[in-house]
Amino acid sequence: MQFKKITIIGVGLIGGSIGLNIKKRHPRTEIVGVTAHSKTLRAALRCGAVDRGTLDAKESVVGADLIIIATPVDRILKTLRKIMPKVKRGCVITDVGSVKGSIVGDAERLAGNKASFIGSHPMAGSEKRGIDEAKSGLFKGTPCIVTKTSRSDREALKKVRDFWKDLGSDTYVLSPEEHDEHISKVSHLVHIAAATLCLTTDTSSLKFASSGFRDTTRIASSDSKLWIPIVLSNRLNVIKDINRYIAELGQIRSIIASNDGTRLRKKLLKAKAIRDNFEVT
Amino acid sequence: MQFKKITIIGVGLIGGSIGLNIKKRHPRTEIVGVTAHSKTLRAALRCGAVDRGTLDAKESVVGADLIIIATPVDRILKTLRKIMPKVKRGCVITDVGSVKGSIVGDAERLAGNKASFIGSHPMAGSEKRGIDEAKSGLFKGTPCIVTKTSRSDREALKKVRDFWKDLGSDTYVLSPEEHDEHISKVSHLVHIAAATLCLTTDTSSLKFASSGFRDTTRIASSDSKLWIPIVLSNRLNVIKDINRYIAELGQIRSIIASNDGTRLRKKLLKAKAIRDNFEVT
Repeated sequence: MQFKKITIIGVGLIGGSIGLNIKKRHPRTEIVGVTAHSKTLRAALRCGAVDRGTLDAKESVVGADLIIIATPVDRILKTLRKIMPKVKRGCVITDVGSVKGSIVGDAERLAGNKASFIGSHPMAGSEKRGIDEAKSGLFKGTPCIVTKTSRSDREALKKVRDFWKDLGSDTYVLSPEEHDEHISKVSHLVHIAAATLCLTTDTSSLKFASSGFRDTTRIASSDSKLWIPIVLSNRLNVIKDINRYIAELGQIRSIIASNDGTRLRKKLLKAKAIRDNFEVT
Repeated sequence: MQFKKITIIGVGLIGGSIGLNIKKRHPRTEIVGVTAHSKTLRAALRCGAVDRGTLDAKESVVGADLIIIATPVDRILKTLRKIMPKVKRGCVITDVGSVKGSIVGDAERLAGNKASFIGSHPMAGSEKRGIDEAKSGLFKGTPCIVTKTSRSDREALKKVRDFWKDLGSDTYVLSPEEHDEHISKVSHLVHIAAATLCLTTDTSSLKFASSGFRDTTRIASSDSKLWIPIVLSNRLNVIKDINRYIAELGQIRSIIASNDGTRLRKKLLKAKAIRDNFEVT
């Protein structure tokens, strides 16, 4: 492990899983965890995700070589602003937020010349959250996007990328804007589509639902507190993708209305080919 | 088991799972399986889903007390027309089709006074198909709708319902029209929504997709040959539900466009409550 002391701010599903993974394979790396609640802190210590826990983010970063801000997206910049005075010169800082455009530019400016901020987004969430759901293998074989801008420090970028590779992620380097465009399609729109399916279903019909409905709507169980700032801060992309989705639904509706089995077959076969080509652990 | 000889026409995922389940618990019940391909027949014999197999549907039903038509929906009525001359007087006939309005009335007329047709729909599919995917526990804890019309024979209805209960299903009795309205919402619309999500996603974005995308789009891998006749024969309900879905998506889009976190929270919390209330094995 290239980092001697790592501070993880926000020890939930993602932060906790990072800690568990590192402690398992690099037991000599020191991990300090920061949470807002002492109950979470105790759970993180108990399961071995952190060596030491604190409620004080500023104090926690003193001497850290890597700081991972694993809070909900609407608290990333606030957290960075708070810790910067105590950050060690030359420190690498990253986050795990599901949006990048609204974070990375400001975060780079806040880090200034004192530290290097490199945005990260490990695509390894769940509809569940919290330290109790954390597991060391969470990142294995999942994509992790690391952002690169004109300000990115090359060495810091490499360190962050290597860090995620070491956790088992397949890493990709994108600009924050490219990240937001792609993730709107494969994640943010998907959340909206699943939640809206639930809203469209009469509750009287639910007792007849089976595994298809269960899986298609699973992520509608996600915590809205996490998702609202994500969707709203990427809203231009999300709206564009909702529009594309509605347009596609309109096309399929016309095909069904005209009872056109040949054209419906083409659409469903194309969808199946796209889905069959996609493999994830 | 109340039936001594059962004929299953179409020994795929559903028909094969029925056979496996009955043979496991009622080994003395004779099961004859009918398939279109001798390869499937051999597989059904090998795994023990049927005692005897044949490619000849007419011959297979001679002496049967219960006939289960487990073909794709567009072949149910054709199959019934073919077998009726050989069906034993007083025999009970059912199907496993995912639509009922376009089948049950005609099937009842075809069965006439000679036999009793009762429609069934076990909600126990998968995106996979075929005898190799069959398993005896497929129906455990899943809903099965049995249809009742003004023509339904009470005793036959009870027998069919008891049959599905015996397989582990939670049974519900609905009219064919009620069935089609409910299932459009919890299944047919869900298939369209999942397939359309795939069509909306640029393939260049797919490498960044993770478990959320995987589960939400799983059923887009279903066999289009099975789904086209289902969706088209229930198209009035499906179109109504696509319209409702598009209207809901439009509402969410407006909320996102106006950056209204409070209203978005209400929507996402409502969707989450609906999803969290839903439990299926």
